[in-house]
Amino acid sequence: MKPAFADIEAAARRIAPHAHVTPVLRSRSLDALAGCAIAFKCENFQRVGAFKFRGACNAVWSLSEADAIRGVVTHSSGNHGAALALAARTRGIAAHVVVPDGAVAAKIAAIRAYGASVHVCAPTLAARDEAATRIARETGAALVHPFTNEHVIAGQGTAALELLRETGGLDALIAPIGGGGLIGGSGVAAKGIFPQIRIFAAEPEGAADAYESLRRGERVVDIEPDTICDGLRATFGQVNFDLMREYGVQVLPVSDTETIAAMRLIFERMKIVVEPSSAVVLAAILRHRERFAGLRVGAILSGGNVDLQQLPW
Amino acid sequence: MKPAFADIEAAARRIAPHAHVTPVLRSRSLDALAGCAIAFKCENFQRVGAFKFRGACNAVWSLSEADAIRGVVTHSSGNHGAALALAARTRGIAAHVVVPDGAVAAKIAAIRAYGASVHVCAPTLAARDEAATRIARETGAALVHPFTNEHVIAGQGTAALELLRETGGLDALIAPIGGGGLIGGSGVAAKGIFPQIRIFAAEPEGAADAYESLRRGERVVDIEPDTICDGLRATFGQVNFDLMREYGVQVLPVSDTETIAAMRLIFERMKIVVEPSSAVVLAAILRHRERFAGLRVGAILSGGNVDLQQLPW
Repeated sequence: MKPAFADIEAAARRIAPHAHVTPVLRSRSLDALAGCAIAFKCENFQRVGAFKFRGACNAVWSLSEADAIRGVVTHSSGNHGAALALAARTRGIAAHVVVPDGAVAAKIAAIRAYGASVHVCAPTLAARDEAATRIARETGAALVHPFTNEHVIAGQGTAALELLRETGGLDALIAPIGGGGLIGGSGVAAKGIFPQIRIFAAEPEGAADAYESLRRGERVVDIEPDTICDGLRATFGQVNFDLMREYGVQVLPVSDTETIAAMRLIFERMKIVVEPSSAVVLAAILRHRERFAGLRVGAILSGGNVDLQQLPW
Repeated sequence: MKPAFADIEAAARRIAPHAHVTPVLRSRSLDALAGCAIAFKCENFQRVGAFKFRGACNAVWSLSEADAIRGVVTHSSGNHGAALALAARTRGIAAHVVVPDGAVAAKIAAIRAYGASVHVCAPTLAARDEAATRIARETGAALVHPFTNEHVIAGQGTAALELLRETGGLDALIAPIGGGGLIGGSGVAAKGIFPQIRIFAAEPEGAADAYESLRRGERVVDIEPDTICDGLRATFGQVNFDLMREYGVQVLPVSDTETIAAMRLIFERMKIVVEPSSAVVLAAILRHRERFAGLRVGAILSGGNVDLQQLPW
């Protein structure tokens, strides 16, 4: 199911007691470098360090009392697992997170620290789905898919909603694309406020399933991701593809080298910590500068969960 | 000359068209770790990446037209040089910055990029003073000392002024101490708003001239600094010492190891980039936690100009 603009507004009201209204930051020197005026929505300051908390929180608080009491389940090796764990805790319900064997120990520890039960499975798509479905059947927990769930998509759209209401008129909006929950929700929110706004998605060349899908006119699901952007390796969903076509989203590919350079610029010029999956938006603006020349651009920095011991420069 | 509270308010009005009102950030997880409620004033987001722009800007805009036209001069190998260069540019006047031979190339490049003339001298205190005095004599430029100039001190106080006006009641305020311009101005500002507030200064053990001076009751000037905090190596001035005693500032020493751990916590939990000279305030709160237990604490993060290629962990 595709969410409508009213669903984004409802999500914003639903998550307001739990989620942060994150700051919008600007940088004169990055504007000069890019040749446009960029308003960065800083979801690295969101709870659990990523926009994912918005969607998870909306999904958890959209459940009926009867459903909620049986808890929630998802599969994720990254930010969505931690986000759902914390969202469940805000409602006092159980969360189960299926993680693939070999997932980063720090991320598993974070999911546990937020109070979720962690279930390790074999590192395949089939094993992951099987484990989550089995847990849902056994416990009655509601399955909250990381990016096809409509409440998740609506929740992710609240970042763009806040951004556009704070900045006023923008000519373009850009967000990263992985599974497509953020770009889908952002499209619904932005077009609902400014029907003329252009929507762009920044995508790593090494995980260009969205770019290829739009080019071929059908959803491509057989790309093996190879990118430093660990948050953007997922294969995006059918509902997300539909939303992208409906809102005329243009996908802008970037190389990992460009992403790393952009990430460093954000650290140096903006003095904030972002993960590679966030930096793709600046990388895309700088690489495809002719698309943005002179425009007022909103850019969603999706998160800041990066291994500080292994910064990529 | 010691500035009064009215001078801080005048400075705030004077620099308003040029300086940023920086955000105040909080972190649930750092509060839990520290056992108190900390409001961080984020001067890493200030122009030139440090609070130093406040003082430099106030000094530049306090000059009469007749004086301003002859420009300004200072000595600095760090943020004050860049700050004065940019401040001079906001008024369209010349800036001369004396830097010691061997100063970091990136910092010299930054000073030049803001349009200042750079004068390299031998790396001694005497050579530095001699060069600055000579340039002042030859050009008629006004000497703007990095931390004893009263307009600089008043300008630095505007960060605490903004912080306290935004947060309302605070029990304690902590800032780093190097030359003492920031802590002096902060004391004037904070005591002017909340006479009961306690003022703390965080100081590296390897540059503990303020701590030793208060202990001995006289200004100690013969300490050879040995600390990672490159912004806190200066020997603090007489006017700064007088202000510290007047406002009952308590100096809390921290080791570089504690500072590095605190810096990493700030990166990880707050998702912001700070330099070691900023992280000392969190290090001091964590080490001397009994002083802050249960209190509402304002903490000034002084800047974010750090070499990202050589993070200290």
